Amino acid sequence: MAAPSMHLNLFIMGCGHHKAAWRHPESAVERLGDIRYYEALARTAERGKLDAVFFADGHAASNVAGGPQWFLEPLTALSAMARATERIGLISTVSSTFFTPFHAARMLASLDHISGGRLGWNLVTSMFDSEARNHGWEAMPPHEVRYARAEEFAETVLALWDSWADDALRLDRHGQFADPHKVRPIQHHGEHFLVDGPLTVPRPPQGHPVLFQAGASEPGRDLAARYAEAIYAVAYDLPSAQAYYRDIQARVKAAGRPPVSIMPGLVTYVASTEAEARARQRELDELLPTEDSLRQLGQFIGQDCRGWALDAPVPSLPPLSAFSGPKGRYATILRIIESEKPTLRQLLGRLAAGGGHCTLVGTPEQVADEMQHWVEQGGADGFNLMPPSLPGSIEDFVDQVVPVLQARGLFRRDYVGHTLREHLGLARPAA
Amino acid sequence: MAAPSMHLNLFIMGCGHHKAAWRHPESAVERLGDIRYYEALARTAERGKLDAVFFADGHAASNVAGGPQWFLEPLTALSAMARATERIGLISTVSSTFFTPFHAARMLASLDHISGGRLGWNLVTSMFDSEARNHGWEAMPPHEVRYARAEEFAETVLALWDSWADDALRLDRHGQFADPHKVRPIQHHGEHFLVDGPLTVPRPPQGHPVLFQAGASEPGRDLAARYAEAIYAVAYDLPSAQAYYRDIQARVKAAGRPPVSIMPGLVTYVASTEAEARARQRELDELLPTEDSLRQLGQFIGQDCRGWALDAPVPSLPPLSAFSGPKGRYATILRIIESEKPTLRQLLGRLAAGGGHCTLVGTPEQVADEMQHWVEQGGADGFNLMPPSLPGSIEDFVDQVVPVLQARGLFRRDYVGHTLREHLGLARPAA
Repeated sequence: MAAPSMHLNLFIMGCGHHKAAWRHPESAVERLGDIRYYEALARTAERGKLDAVFFADGHAASNVAGGPQWFLEPLTALSAMARATERIGLISTVSSTFFTPFHAARMLASLDHISGGRLGWNLVTSMFDSEARNHGWEAMPPHEVRYARAEEFAETVLALWDSWADDALRLDRHGQFADPHKVRPIQHHGEHFLVDGPLTVPRPPQGHPVLFQAGASEPGRDLAARYAEAIYAVAYDLPSAQAYYRDIQARVKAAGRPPVSIMPGLVTYVASTEAEARARQRELDELLPTEDSLRQLGQFIGQDCRGWALDAPVPSLPPLSAFSGPKGRYATILRIIESEKPTLRQLLGRLAAGGGHCTLVGTPEQVADEMQHWVEQGGADGFNLMPPSLPGSIEDFVDQVVPVLQARGLFRRDYVGHTLREHLGLARPAA
Repeated sequence: MAAPSMHLNLFIMGCGHHKAAWRHPESAVERLGDIRYYEALARTAERGKLDAVFFADGHAASNVAGGPQWFLEPLTALSAMARATERIGLISTVSSTFFTPFHAARMLASLDHISGGRLGWNLVTSMFDSEARNHGWEAMPPHEVRYARAEEFAETVLALWDSWADDALRLDRHGQFADPHKVRPIQHHGEHFLVDGPLTVPRPPQGHPVLFQAGASEPGRDLAARYAEAIYAVAYDLPSAQAYYRDIQARVKAAGRPPVSIMPGLVTYVASTEAEARARQRELDELLPTEDSLRQLGQFIGQDCRGWALDAPVPSLPPLSAFSGPKGRYATILRIIESEKPTLRQLLGRLAAGGGHCTLVGTPEQVADEMQHWVEQGGADGFNLMPPSLPGSIEDFVDQVVPVLQARGLFRRDYVGHTLREHLGLARPAA
């Protein structure tokens, strides 16, 4: 394969990214507490030679009636998944607001040893007061405090990983276990953290587990530009993906760093005919409890839509400038209505499955065409796959889309390296 | 088997509990970062039908030249070990000073799901300023603050586990995922912690993972008496084990609770003849770097002993009342000298392997005799096995001592239950 492989992650979420996926008769909803379900997903992703599997994370349970949200904790789940696989990367979300840097550095380093160098961490600052109020805060600290803390958190974690030199372990039975001159305190006494170090874990196999970030806000983009080694993005269509891509790579360059891989989220419905793929999408959409969805849509658009006809086109909405509520989601809704001309039911379904993320529905070739187009047109270096239902949608992708990408020389036919860093083409950092 | 089984844990520590074990030519020192080493230890313990494997924990690296101390982080390691075994319990130390109750409750609950109900947690308050200074504290909080915090920590963790009713999950594809009336906030707003809850993880299979504690100080014993479901103890000989046992069970009774299992630490050197067992002990003792050990002993006893003859009996020491340094360790040293009349080299070896814990050296029958005697004489309900070298000493114990205990009806021939709670004869707590 001449060109570098595009990068593909499986973003694992409950029974799938479609909010109604758990309601499907064949869903795995009974198995959400069963680690074997996640091990099987990781093995499916590894069969498809994907770069990694990825867990988002949250620290509060809400709307438990509506569907599964969180269940197993990611760091503990990924350890078992590491032992059920051999090559695929494993990425955990870690909140810089709720962890101490020492816990984070230590657990991620431990997992990097357990997995033989396959760990990544997605650094988030967390968002909700309900999460803050599970970890001793009265409310989430302000945005700028969260990001200042996140930056200091990242620096501290990286310093802890470097507190053991690569050659610190001597294992000399007649002398030293480790060379004390190569295991150094970090003496970090900053604004948010006091951490003397050194870490209790020798340097991780990858030097540093790979740092992912998903910067959307201004400070988020700046943090990503300075620290992220790979970036998750939200892009509804190619122009917005290109705009984000250009903006981030410019910031990365301004920070004096080489380009980083950017992976927008991607929801795919794949089948051997487009009609069949659309039928799969419709099947999930029809499982949505319309009353709840209409009430939620009403909140998003600031008007009562419970009387609207489900299978008629969505009525036209006021322009963004006339909307006084949260603009991001409203803008997405306007774009979906404008570009897809959906019925009300279709709109509810789109919002219930990856909302503002790109959604592709079609044959393996059609899906591969669009993925290729995004990569060739500077919108993405790969994708963070958000299968609407699990395990079905990722099996479809691995069995049907991956071979097309491989045949076109766009995706690896097998792993070359053994570490996540190698899959992503990232050099191992010196201490 | 008529009588209830005694309880046996494998206390995993690096290459073994003898400080020089890693120096043995056959030690596994090269494998301390390899999860397969710990998986194999857990399988050996499971072959012996032990109740559980157990990790201590610390949050600072010190004296890295002298030998291995910490390496993999326990919660991540135990997840992999859970998947490498089927029945044995898995116990992690968790510090109430460094974790938030939400993190602890969540990770332990997740591991209880992953292991199918085999998790235990050993609640500690941690001791060293060097650890505190890795988690944002200038120094360890005072003893009474640590114990007040530990008590509030335990209450909060238990409340989080109970925040989901056992029957909260409905999994009704045409209705609710979970019953919101059975997933309740805990609204804990205490002196040390603010935690609204509910947890993000449904109630653990065991209801509560089993709570271990090792209370030695007055507040430690009180905490253990009120919360612990099983207790680790330090007892040099049967009289001190009996005194501790009586004291704790009296406190447990005063707290209105049924008796709890107490497991003193136990170091064993086993071989088919007593001479061979003593030779094994001597082989490890002779691997100790004498200069370091003599300097350390000098600190313990408050005098310079570097000129003393290694293979002559230890000179007599001033009585405890005349010693102005830390009394606990000094008292242990006096007792070893009095009861074992060791040479200086033997004393250094004893201190290097489990210090104040009971040490048995002999044939399988001799070791089983003494264990039986402790249990029958009200000194113990079982033992926390501290093998001087790993994996060798635990293989010896499982292959040689366990069959003797089984033949005498003192230990289970196979597991009856599937959860750690069942192995320990503990009822599953109602929410």
